[in-house]
Amino acid sequence: MSEQQNSSATPVTAAVLVIGDEILSGRTKDRNIGFIAEYLTNIGVDLKEVRVVPDEHQEIVDAVNALRRRYHYVFTTGGIGPTHDDITADAIAAAFGVSIDVDERAVQELLKRLRREDLTPARLRMARIPAGAELVLNEVSSAPGFWIGNVITMAGVPAIMQSMMDWVGPRLRTGQRMLSTSIRADAREGDVAAPFGEVARVFPDVIMGSYPFNDEKGFNTNLVLRSRDAARLEQARQAVEAMLAALPSRDATGVARP
Amino acid sequence: MSEQQNSSATPVTAAVLVIGDEILSGRTKDRNIGFIAEYLTNIGVDLKEVRVVPDEHQEIVDAVNALRRRYHYVFTTGGIGPTHDDITADAIAAAFGVSIDVDERAVQELLKRLRREDLTPARLRMARIPAGAELVLNEVSSAPGFWIGNVITMAGVPAIMQSMMDWVGPRLRTGQRMLSTSIRADAREGDVAAPFGEVARVFPDVIMGSYPFNDEKGFNTNLVLRSRDAARLEQARQAVEAMLAALPSRDATGVARP
Repeated sequence: MSEQQNSSATPVTAAVLVIGDEILSGRTKDRNIGFIAEYLTNIGVDLKEVRVVPDEHQEIVDAVNALRRRYHYVFTTGGIGPTHDDITADAIAAAFGVSIDVDERAVQELLKRLRREDLTPARLRMARIPAGAELVLNEVSSAPGFWIGNVITMAGVPAIMQSMMDWVGPRLRTGQRMLSTSIRADAREGDVAAPFGEVARVFPDVIMGSYPFNDEKGFNTNLVLRSRDAARLEQARQAVEAMLAALPSRDATGVARP
Repeated sequence: MSEQQNSSATPVTAAVLVIGDEILSGRTKDRNIGFIAEYLTNIGVDLKEVRVVPDEHQEIVDAVNALRRRYHYVFTTGGIGPTHDDITADAIAAAFGVSIDVDERAVQELLKRLRREDLTPARLRMARIPAGAELVLNEVSSAPGFWIGNVITMAGVPAIMQSMMDWVGPRLRTGQRMLSTSIRADAREGDVAAPFGEVARVFPDVIMGSYPFNDEKGFNTNLVLRSRDAARLEQARQAVEAMLAALPSRDATGVARP
Protein backbone atom coordinates (compact mmCIF):
# COMPACT_ATOMS: atom_id res chain seq x y z
CA MET A 1 0.00 0.00 0.00
CA SER A 2 2.92 2.37 0.53
CA GLU A 3 3.34 3.00 -3.18
CA GLN A 4 -0.27 4.14 -3.36
CA GLN A 5 0.17 6.56 -0.51
CA ASN A 6 3.17 8.08 -2.29
CA SER A 7 1.45 8.51 -5.62
CA SER A 8 -0.81 11.21 -7.02
CA ALA A 9 -4.57 10.77 -6.84
CA THR A 10 -4.92 12.26 -10.33
CA PRO A 11 -4.83 9.57 -13.01
CA VAL A 12 -1.75 9.68 -15.26
CA THR A 13 -2.68 8.75 -18.82
CA ALA A 14 -0.76 7.35 -21.76
CA ALA A 15 -1.06 6.27 -25.37
CA VAL A 16 0.99 3.78 -27.39
CA LEU A 17 1.86 4.42 -31.03
CA VAL A 18 3.10 1.36 -32.91
CA ILE A 19 4.93 2.32 -36.11
CA GLY A 20 5.40 -0.34 -38.74
CA ASP A 21 4.15 -1.67 -42.07
CA GLU A 22 5.00 -5.19 -40.88
CA ILE A 23 2.31 -5.06 -38.18
CA LEU A 24 -0.34 -3.72 -40.57
CA SER A 25 0.47 -6.36 -43.18
CA GLY A 26 0.18 -9.08 -40.54
CA ARG A 27 3.68 -10.35 -41.31
CA THR A 28 4.78 -9.56 -37.75
CA LYS A 29 2.38 -10.09 -34.86
CA ASP A 30 2.70 -7.24 -32.37
CA ARG A 31 3.82 -8.25 -28.89
CA ASN A 32 4.57 -4.76 -27.60
CA ILE A 33 1.06 -3.42 -27.00
CA GLY A 34 0.21 -6.10 -24.44
CA PHE A 35 3.55 -5.76 -22.68
CA ILE A 36 3.37 -1.98 -22.35
CA ALA A 37 -0.30 -2.13 -21.32
CA GLU A 38 0.47 -4.53 -18.47
CA TYR A 39 3.62 -2.63 -17.46
CA LEU A 40 1.82 0.72 -17.26
CA THR A 41 -1.14 -0.72 -15.36
CA ASN A 42 1.26 -2.20 -12.81
CA ILE A 43 3.00 1.11 -12.14
CA GLY A 44 -0.16 3.25 -12.02
CA VAL A 45 -0.32 4.77 -15.51
CA ASP A 46 -3.61 4.39 -17.42
CA LEU A 47 -3.20 3.36 -21.05
CA LYS A 48 -6.11 5.09 -22.79
CA GLU A 49 -5.46 4.59 -26.50
CA VAL A 50 -3.30 2.65 -28.94
CA ARG A 51 -2.71 3.41 -32.59
CA VAL A 52 -0.82 1.47 -35.25
CA VAL A 53 0.33 3.48 -38.29
CA PRO A 54 2.44 2.64 -41.36
CA ASP A 55 6.03 3.73 -42.05
CA GLU A 56 4.83 7.00 -43.60
CA HIS A 57 6.19 10.34 -42.43
CA GLN A 58 2.99 12.37 -42.27
CA GLU A 59 1.00 9.53 -40.70
CA ILE A 60 3.53 9.32 -37.86
CA VAL A 61 3.69 13.11 -37.40
CA ASP A 62 -0.10 13.43 -37.28
CA ALA A 63 -0.54 10.55 -34.85
CA VAL A 64 2.23 11.80 -32.52
CA ASN A 65 0.73 15.28 -32.44
CA ALA A 66 -2.81 14.02 -31.86
CA LEU A 67 -1.75 11.75 -29.02
CA ARG A 68 0.81 13.92 -27.25
CA ARG A 69 -1.72 16.74 -26.84
CA ARG A 70 -4.25 14.39 -25.31
CA TYR A 71 -2.33 12.16 -22.89
CA HIS A 72 0.40 12.64 -20.30
CA TYR A 73 2.74 10.22 -22.07
CA VAL A 74 3.07 8.75 -25.56
CA PHE A 75 5.17 5.63 -26.07
CA THR A 76 6.21 4.82 -29.63
CA THR A 77 7.67 1.52 -30.81
CA GLY A 78 9.43 0.74 -34.08
CA GLY A 79 11.27 2.48 -36.89
CA ILE A 80 14.51 3.48 -35.14
CA GLY A 81 16.91 1.07 -36.88
CA PRO A 82 19.62 1.79 -39.47
CA THR A 83 17.70 1.29 -42.74
CA HIS A 84 15.95 3.70 -45.09
CA ASP A 85 12.51 2.65 -43.78
CA ASP A 86 13.44 3.70 -40.23
CA ILE A 87 11.90 7.16 -40.23
CA THR A 88 10.51 7.49 -36.72
CA ALA A 89 13.20 9.82 -35.32
CA ASP A 90 12.80 12.30 -38.17
CA ALA A 91 9.01 12.19 -37.83
CA ILE A 92 9.16 12.87 -34.08
CA ALA A 93 11.51 15.81 -34.70
CA ALA A 94 9.06 17.14 -37.29
CA ALA A 95 6.13 16.69 -34.91
CA PHE A 96 7.94 18.82 -32.31
CA GLY A 97 9.30 21.27 -34.91
CA VAL A 98 12.90 20.72 -33.83
CA SER A 99 16.04 19.83 -35.78
CA ILE A 100 17.60 16.39 -35.83
CA ASP A 101 21.20 15.33 -36.30
CA VAL A 102 23.75 12.74 -35.22
CA ASP A 103 24.02 13.08 -31.45
CA GLU A 104 27.44 12.60 -29.85
CA ARG A 105 25.94 10.98 -26.73
CA ALA A 106 24.25 8.39 -28.95
CA VAL A 107 27.49 7.81 -30.89
CA GLN A 108 29.23 7.07 -27.59
CA GLU A 109 26.50 4.54 -26.75
CA LEU A 110 26.90 2.82 -30.12
CA LEU A 111 30.69 2.64 -29.62
CA LYS A 112 30.15 0.63 -26.42
CA ARG A 113 29.32 -2.40 -28.57
CA LEU A 114 30.63 -1.49 -32.02
CA ARG A 115 34.15 -0.91 -33.28
CA ARG A 116 34.61 2.56 -34.73
CA GLU A 117 35.28 1.07 -38.21
CA ASP A 118 31.86 -0.62 -38.03
CA LEU A 119 30.16 2.73 -37.39
CA THR A 120 28.97 3.00 -40.98
CA PRO A 121 26.80 5.90 -42.18
CA ALA A 122 23.85 3.51 -41.97
CA ARG A 123 24.57 2.70 -38.31
CA LEU A 124 25.09 6.40 -37.62
CA ARG A 125 21.41 6.85 -38.57
CA MET A 126 20.68 5.16 -35.24
CA ALA A 127 22.43 8.08 -33.50
CA ARG A 128 20.10 10.66 -35.07
CA ILE A 129 18.28 12.21 -32.10
CA PRO A 130 15.87 15.17 -32.15
CA ALA A 131 17.33 18.34 -30.60
CA GLY A 132 16.52 18.60 -26.91
CA ALA A 133 15.75 14.91 -26.42
CA GLU A 134 17.21 12.72 -23.67
CA LEU A 135 18.53 9.29 -24.56
CA VAL A 136 16.63 6.18 -23.49
CA LEU A 137 19.10 3.39 -22.80
CA ASN A 138 18.73 -0.37 -22.74
CA GLU A 139 20.72 -3.47 -21.82
CA VAL A 140 20.25 -5.41 -25.05
CA SER A 141 21.40 -3.16 -27.87
CA SER A 142 23.71 -0.17 -27.90
CA ALA A 143 21.28 1.83 -30.03
CA PRO A 144 19.33 4.22 -27.80
CA GLY A 145 15.77 5.40 -27.93
CA PHE A 146 14.93 8.92 -26.82
CA TRP A 147 12.52 11.00 -24.76
CA ILE A 148 11.37 14.43 -25.93
CA GLY A 149 8.60 16.38 -24.23
CA ASN A 150 6.07 13.72 -23.23
CA VAL A 151 6.97 11.34 -26.08
CA ILE A 152 9.15 8.31 -25.44
CA THR A 153 10.50 6.60 -28.57
CA MET A 154 11.55 2.98 -28.24
CA ALA A 155 12.69 0.11 -30.44
CA GLY A 156 10.24 -2.30 -32.07
CA VAL A 157 12.20 -5.47 -31.26
CA PRO A 158 10.40 -6.72 -28.13
CA ALA A 159 13.51 -7.61 -26.08
CA ILE A 160 15.01 -4.15 -26.68
CA MET A 161 11.72 -2.33 -26.08
CA GLN A 162 11.21 -4.20 -22.82
CA SER A 163 14.66 -3.24 -21.60
CA MET A 164 13.93 0.38 -22.55
CA MET A 165 10.66 0.25 -20.56
CA ASP A 166 12.68 -0.88 -17.54
CA TRP A 167 14.83 2.22 -17.98
CA VAL A 168 11.84 4.52 -18.51
CA GLY A 169 9.46 3.11 -15.88
CA PRO A 170 11.15 4.47 -12.74
CA ARG A 171 11.40 7.91 -14.37
CA LEU A 172 7.66 8.26 -15.07
CA ARG A 173 5.23 10.21 -12.98
CA THR A 174 2.65 7.68 -11.84
CA GLY A 175 -0.82 7.91 -10.41
CA GLN A 176 -2.60 5.83 -7.87
CA ARG A 177 -2.51 2.29 -9.11
CA MET A 178 -5.69 0.79 -10.55
CA LEU A 179 -6.47 -2.32 -8.49
CA SER A 180 -8.38 -5.20 -9.99
CA THR A 181 -9.89 -8.49 -9.00
CA SER A 182 -11.19 -11.26 -11.24
CA ILE A 183 -14.07 -13.53 -10.22
CA ARG A 184 -14.88 -16.72 -12.08
CA ALA A 185 -18.66 -16.68 -12.36
CA ASP A 186 -19.25 -20.38 -13.13
CA ALA A 187 -22.19 -19.15 -15.16
CA ARG A 188 -22.90 -18.30 -18.76
CA GLU A 189 -22.47 -14.62 -19.58
CA GLY A 190 -26.09 -14.27 -20.66
CA ASP A 191 -27.28 -15.61 -17.29
CA VAL A 192 -25.05 -13.40 -15.19
CA ALA A 193 -25.40 -10.25 -17.30
CA ALA A 194 -28.57 -8.78 -15.76
CA PRO A 195 -27.72 -9.25 -12.05
CA PHE A 196 -24.12 -8.20 -12.75
CA GLY A 197 -25.41 -5.02 -14.36
CA GLU A 198 -27.46 -4.35 -11.24
CA VAL A 199 -24.37 -4.64 -9.03
CA ALA A 200 -22.53 -2.33 -11.43
CA ARG A 201 -25.24 0.29 -11.00
CA VAL A 202 -24.81 0.14 -7.22
CA PHE A 203 -21.05 0.71 -7.61
CA PRO A 204 -20.74 3.38 -10.34
CA ASP A 205 -17.19 4.14 -9.11
CA VAL A 206 -16.00 0.55 -9.68
CA ILE A 207 -15.36 -0.43 -13.32
CA MET A 208 -16.93 -3.81 -14.04
CA GLY A 209 -16.30 -5.92 -17.11
CA SER A 210 -17.44 -9.35 -18.16
CA TYR A 211 -15.32 -11.73 -20.27
CA PRO A 212 -16.81 -14.96 -21.58
CA PHE A 213 -14.61 -18.00 -22.10
CA ASN A 214 -14.92 -21.68 -22.91
CA ASP A 215 -13.37 -24.52 -21.02
CA GLU A 216 -13.89 -28.28 -20.85
CA LYS A 217 -17.02 -27.71 -18.73
CA GLY A 218 -18.60 -25.38 -21.28
CA PHE A 219 -19.35 -21.67 -21.40
CA ASN A 220 -18.15 -19.62 -18.46
CA THR A 221 -17.48 -15.98 -17.60
CA ASN A 222 -14.83 -13.99 -15.78
CA LEU A 223 -16.07 -10.87 -14.02
CA VAL A 224 -13.37 -8.23 -13.57
CA LEU A 225 -13.72 -5.35 -11.10
CA ARG A 226 -11.36 -2.36 -11.15
CA SER A 227 -10.98 0.56 -8.76
CA ARG A 228 -8.27 2.72 -7.25
CA ASP A 229 -9.96 2.37 -3.86
CA ALA A 230 -9.15 -0.93 -2.16
CA ALA A 231 -12.07 -0.71 0.27
CA ARG A 232 -14.64 -0.01 -2.46
CA LEU A 233 -13.17 -2.80 -4.59
CA GLU A 234 -13.59 -5.24 -1.71
CA GLN A 235 -17.19 -4.10 -1.09
CA ALA A 236 -17.96 -4.58 -4.78
CA ARG A 237 -16.29 -8.00 -4.78
CA GLN A 238 -18.46 -9.13 -1.90
CA ALA A 239 -21.57 -7.84 -3.65
CA VAL A 240 -20.67 -9.75 -6.81
CA GLU A 241 -19.98 -12.95 -4.83
CA ALA A 242 -23.36 -12.61 -3.11
CA MET A 243 -25.05 -12.05 -6.46
CA LEU A 244 -23.39 -15.17 -7.89
CA ALA A 245 -24.35 -17.30 -4.88
CA ALA A 246 -27.99 -16.38 -5.50
CA LEU A 247 -27.92 -17.17 -9.24
CA PRO A 248 -30.61 -19.77 -10.04
CA SER A 249 -28.67 -21.14 -12.99
CA ARG A 250 -25.63 -22.01 -10.91
CA ASP A 251 -25.83 -25.47 -9.39
CA ALA A 252 -24.45 -26.66 -6.04
CA THR A 253 -21.12 -27.74 -7.53
CA GLY A 254 -20.45 -24.19 -8.67
CA VAL A 255 -20.57 -25.28 -12.29
CA ALA A 256 -22.82 -23.56 -14.78
CA ARG A 257 -25.79 -25.57 -15.94
CA PRO A 258 -25.70 -26.22 -19.69
CA MET B 1 -2.80 -14.84 -60.97
CA SER B 2 -6.46 -14.96 -62.00
CA GLU B 3 -7.60 -13.28 -58.80
CA GLN B 4 -5.33 -10.36 -59.53
CA GLN B 5 -6.65 -9.97 -63.05
CA ASN B 6 -10.22 -9.91 -61.70
CA SER B 7 -9.54 -7.31 -59.06
CA SER B 8 -9.46 -3.55 -59.11
CA ALA B 9 -6.17 -1.73 -59.60
CA THR B 10 -7.18 0.88 -57.02
CA PRO B 11 -6.06 -0.07 -53.51
CA VAL B 12 -8.89 -0.86 -51.11
CA THR B 13 -8.08 0.40 -47.61
CA ALA B 14 -9.22 -0.56 -44.13
CA ALA B 15 -8.84 0.24 -40.45
CA VAL B 16 -9.34 -1.92 -37.38
CA LEU B 17 -10.89 -0.52 -34.20
CA VAL B 18 -10.40 -2.70 -31.13
CA ILE B 19 -12.85 -1.79 -28.36
CA GLY B 20 -12.05 -2.95 -24.86
CA ASP B 21 -10.72 -1.90 -21.47
CA GLU B 22 -9.25 -5.40 -21.07
CA ILE B 23 -6.80 -4.82 -23.92
CA LEU B 24 -5.71 -1.40 -22.60
CA SER B 25 -5.20 -2.76 -19.09
CA GLY B 26 -3.08 -5.58 -20.47
CA ARG B 27 -5.28 -8.19 -18.81
CA THR B 28 -6.17 -9.64 -22.23
CA LYS B 29 -3.55 -9.80 -24.97
CA ASP B 30 -5.10 -8.90 -28.31
CA ARG B 31 -4.99 -11.64 -30.93
CA ASN B 32 -7.43 -10.05 -33.36
CA ILE B 33 -5.26 -7.32 -34.91
CA GLY B 34 -2.71 -9.77 -36.30
CA PHE B 35 -5.38 -12.12 -37.59
CA ILE B 36 -7.35 -9.42 -39.40
CA ALA B 37 -4.15 -7.84 -40.76
CA GLU B 38 -3.04 -11.11 -42.31
CA TYR B 39 -6.54 -11.95 -43.56
CA LEU B 40 -6.97 -8.57 -45.29
CA THR B 41 -3.49 -8.67 -46.85
CA ASN B 42 -4.27 -12.10 -48.28
CA ILE B 43 -7.48 -10.97 -49.97
CA GLY B 44 -6.14 -7.68 -51.32
CA VAL B 45 -7.30 -5.12 -48.75
CA ASP B 46 -4.66 -2.78 -47.29
CA LEU B 47 -4.88 -2.34 -43.53
CA LYS B 48 -3.73 1.26 -43.00
CA GLU B 49 -4.46 1.98 -39.34
CA VAL B 50 -5.41 0.33 -36.08
CA ARG B 51 -6.82 1.96 -32.97
CA VAL B 52 -7.60 0.53 -29.55
CA VAL B 53 -10.06 2.52 -27.42
CA PRO B 54 -11.71 1.91 -24.03
CA ASP B 55 -15.32 0.93 -23.37
CA GLU B 56 -16.41 4.58 -23.40
CA HIS B 57 -19.27 5.74 -25.61
CA GLN B 58 -17.82 8.98 -26.95
CA GLU B 59 -14.37 7.44 -27.54
CA ILE B 60 -15.93 4.74 -29.70
CA VAL B 61 -18.16 7.20 -31.58
CA ASP B 62 -15.26 9.55 -32.33
CA ALA B 63 -12.94 6.77 -33.47
CA VAL B 64 -15.58 5.17 -35.70
CA ASN B 65 -16.35 8.51 -37.33
CA ALA B 66 -12.68 9.40 -37.85
CA LEU B 67 -11.87 6.02 -39.39
CA ARG B 68 -14.97 5.43 -41.53
CA ARG B 69 -14.47 8.74 -43.32
CA ARG B 70 -10.88 7.90 -44.13
CA TYR B 71 -10.85 4.25 -45.21
CA HIS B 72 -13.00 2.02 -47.39
CA TYR B 73 -13.74 -0.35 -44.53
CA VAL B 74 -13.62 -0.23 -40.73
CA PHE B 75 -13.63 -3.49 -38.76
CA THR B 76 -14.47 -3.26 -35.07
CA THR B 77 -13.92 -6.01 -32.52
CA GLY B 78 -15.34 -6.30 -29.02
CA GLY B 79 -18.19 -4.99 -26.92
CA ILE B 80 -21.17 -6.79 -28.47
CA GLY B 81 -21.96 -9.23 -25.65
CA PRO B 82 -24.90 -9.22 -23.22
CA THR B 83 -23.48 -7.22 -20.29
CA HIS B 84 -23.74 -3.57 -19.31
CA ASP B 85 -20.18 -2.88 -20.54
CA ASP B 86 -21.05 -4.04 -24.07
CA ILE B 87 -21.81 -0.66 -25.61
CA THR B 88 -20.41 -1.01 -29.12
CA ALA B 89 -23.72 -1.41 -30.97
CA ASP B 90 -25.20 1.73 -29.40
CA ALA B 91 -22.00 3.67 -30.16
CA ILE B 92 -22.03 2.62 -33.82
CA ALA B 93 -25.67 3.65 -34.12
CA ALA B 94 -24.81 7.02 -32.59
CA ALA B 95 -21.85 7.42 -34.96
CA PHE B 96 -24.19 6.91 -37.93
CA GLY B 97 -27.02 8.93 -36.36
CA VAL B 98 -29.50 6.05 -36.65
CA SER B 99 -31.79 4.41 -34.12
CA ILE B 100 -31.10 1.03 -32.53
CA ASP B 101 -33.50 -1.59 -31.23
CA VAL B 102 -33.94 -5.32 -30.86
CA ASP B 103 -33.87 -6.73 -34.40
CA GLU B 104 -36.16 -9.65 -35.21
CA ARG B 105 -33.60 -11.19 -37.60
CA ALA B 106 -31.05 -11.21 -34.79
CA VAL B 107 -33.61 -12.72 -32.38
CA GLN B 108 -34.18 -15.54 -34.85
CA GLU B 109 -30.41 -16.15 -34.98
CA LEU B 110 -30.20 -16.29 -31.18
CA LEU B 111 -33.11 -18.77 -31.09
CA LYS B 112 -31.14 -21.18 -33.27
CA ARG B 113 -29.00 -22.05 -30.25
CA LEU B 114 -31.03 -20.78 -27.29
CA ARG B 115 -34.38 -21.86 -25.92
CA ARG B 116 -36.91 -19.05 -25.90
CA GLU B 117 -37.07 -19.15 -22.07
CA ASP B 118 -33.30 -18.50 -22.02
CA LEU B 119 -33.74 -15.37 -24.13
CA THR B 120 -33.39 -13.09 -21.11
CA PRO B 121 -33.45 -9.29 -21.44
CA ALA B 122 -29.65 -9.42 -21.09
CA ARG B 123 -29.29 -11.84 -24.01
CA LEU B 124 -31.74 -9.73 -26.02
CA ARG B 125 -29.14 -6.95 -25.80
CA MET B 126 -27.14 -9.06 -28.27
CA ALA B 127 -29.99 -8.63 -30.75
CA ARG B 128 -29.81 -4.83 -30.66
CA ILE B 129 -28.80 -3.83 -34.20
CA PRO B 130 -28.53 -0.29 -35.63
CA ALA B 131 -31.31 0.55 -38.09
CA GLY B 132 -30.31 -0.25 -41.67
CA ALA B 133 -27.52 -2.67 -40.75
CA GLU B 134 -27.11 -6.15 -42.19
CA LEU B 135 -26.34 -9.04 -39.86
CA VAL B 136 -22.89 -10.63 -39.86
CA LEU B 137 -23.23 -14.33 -39.07
CA ASN B 138 -20.78 -16.86 -37.69
CA GLU B 139 -20.52 -20.59 -37.08
CA VAL B 140 -19.44 -20.45 -33.42
CA SER B 141 -22.03 -18.39 -31.58
CA SER B 142 -25.61 -17.54 -32.43
CA ALA B 143 -25.06 -13.86 -31.58
CA PRO B 144 -24.54 -11.91 -34.82
CA GLY B 145 -22.33 -8.96 -35.63
CA PHE B 146 -23.52 -6.37 -38.13
CA TRP B 147 -22.47 -4.31 -41.12
CA ILE B 148 -23.64 -0.72 -41.55
CA GLY B 149 -22.28 1.60 -44.23
CA ASN B 150 -18.59 0.73 -44.41
CA VAL B 151 -18.33 -0.39 -40.77
CA ILE B 152 -18.30 -4.08 -39.88
CA THR B 153 -18.82 -4.85 -36.20
CA MET B 154 -17.57 -8.17 -34.93
CA ALA B 155 -17.15 -10.05 -31.65
CA GLY B 156 -14.01 -9.75 -29.55
CA VAL B 157 -13.69 -13.47 -28.77
CA PRO B 158 -11.11 -14.59 -31.37
CA ALA B 159 -12.87 -17.79 -32.48
CA ILE B 160 -16.13 -15.93 -33.09
CA MET B 161 -14.40 -12.97 -34.78
CA GLN B 162 -12.50 -15.31 -37.10
CA SER B 163 -15.69 -17.06 -38.13
CA MET B 164 -17.29 -13.65 -38.78
CA MET B 165 -14.29 -12.67 -40.97
CA ASP B 166 -14.89 -15.82 -43.01
CA TRP B 167 -18.46 -14.64 -43.55
CA VAL B 168 -17.43 -11.06 -44.36
CA GLY B 169 -14.34 -11.75 -46.51
CA PRO B 170 -16.07 -12.98 -49.69
CA ARG B 171 -18.45 -10.00 -49.53
CA LEU B 172 -15.71 -7.33 -49.49
CA ARG B 173 -14.58 -5.34 -52.46
CA THR B 174 -10.90 -6.16 -52.86
CA GLY B 175 -8.03 -4.55 -54.68
CA GLN B 176 -5.06 -6.02 -56.45
CA ARG B 177 -3.29 -8.17 -53.91
CA MET B 178 -0.06 -6.87 -52.42
CA LEU B 179 2.61 -9.46 -53.18
CA SER B 180 5.61 -9.89 -50.95
CA THR B 181 8.84 -11.79 -50.76
CA SER B 182 11.17 -12.19 -47.81
CA ILE B 183 14.93 -12.58 -48.24
CA ARG B 184 17.16 -13.73 -45.40
CA ALA B 185 20.20 -11.44 -45.66
CA ASP B 186 22.67 -13.48 -43.60
CA ALA B 187 24.12 -10.12 -42.62
CA ARG B 188 23.74 -7.71 -39.76
CA GLU B 189 21.18 -4.96 -40.37
CA GLY B 190 23.81 -2.23 -40.01
CA ASP B 191 25.96 -3.84 -42.72
CA VAL B 192 23.15 -4.33 -45.20
CA ALA B 193 21.39 -1.02 -44.55
CA ALA B 194 23.32 1.23 -46.93
CA PRO B 195 23.37 -1.04 -50.03
CA PHE B 196 19.76 -2.05 -49.32
CA GLY B 197 18.81 1.62 -49.26
CA GLU B 198 20.46 2.05 -52.65
CA VAL B 199 18.40 -0.78 -54.13
CA ALA B 200 15.29 0.78 -52.59
CA ARG B 201 16.06 4.06 -54.37
CA VAL B 202 16.25 2.22 -57.71
CA PHE B 203 12.82 0.65 -57.08
CA PRO B 204 10.71 3.47 -55.59
CA ASP B 205 7.57 1.52 -56.56
CA VAL B 206 8.57 -1.51 -54.45
CA ILE B 207 8.14 -1.16 -50.68
CA MET B 208 11.25 -2.43 -48.92
CA GLY B 209 11.56 -3.11 -45.21
CA SER B 210 14.28 -4.56 -43.06
CA TYR B 211 13.65 -6.66 -39.92
CA PRO B 212 16.55 -7.65 -37.67
CA PHE B 213 16.41 -10.90 -35.74
CA ASN B 214 18.68 -13.06 -33.61
CA ASP B 215 19.28 -16.76 -34.01
CA GLU B 216 21.87 -19.23 -32.78
CA LYS B 217 24.35 -17.87 -35.35
CA GLY B 218 23.98 -14.29 -34.12
CA PHE B 219 22.44 -11.14 -35.55
CA ASN B 220 20.69 -11.49 -38.89
CA THR B 221 18.18 -9.55 -41.00
CA ASN B 222 15.11 -10.32 -43.08
CA LEU B 223 14.57 -8.05 -46.06
CA VAL B 224 10.94 -7.85 -47.14
CA LEU B 225 9.90 -6.53 -50.57
CA ARG B 226 6.28 -5.68 -51.36
CA SER B 227 4.60 -4.71 -54.64
CA ARG B 228 1.35 -5.31 -56.50
CA ASP B 229 3.36 -5.90 -59.70
CA ALA B 230 4.80 -9.42 -59.84
CA ALA B 231 7.36 -8.54 -62.53
CA ARG B 232 8.70 -5.52 -60.65
CA LEU B 233 8.82 -7.53 -57.44
CA GLU B 234 10.92 -10.19 -59.18
CA GLN B 235 13.29 -7.56 -60.63
CA ALA B 236 13.72 -6.03 -57.19
CA ARG B 237 14.28 -9.44 -55.63
CA GLN B 238 17.07 -10.16 -58.11
CA ALA B 239 18.65 -6.77 -57.42
CA VAL B 240 18.60 -7.45 -53.67
CA GLU B 241 20.10 -10.92 -54.15
CA ALA B 242 22.88 -9.43 -56.30
CA MET B 243 23.49 -6.75 -53.66
CA LEU B 244 23.73 -9.39 -50.93
CA ALA B 245 26.13 -11.56 -52.97
CA ALA B 246 28.48 -8.59 -53.25
CA LEU B 247 28.38 -7.74 -49.53
CA PRO B 248 31.94 -7.77 -48.16
CA SER B 249 30.79 -8.71 -44.67
CA ARG B 250 29.06 -11.88 -45.82
CA ASP B 251 31.37 -14.88 -45.97
CA ALA B 252 31.34 -17.80 -48.45
CA THR B 253 29.08 -19.90 -46.23
CA GLY B 254 26.39 -17.27 -46.42
CA VAL B 255 26.65 -16.63 -42.69
CA ALA B 256 27.17 -13.15 -41.35
CA ARG B 257 30.59 -12.47 -39.92
CA PRO B 258 30.39 -11.48 -36.24
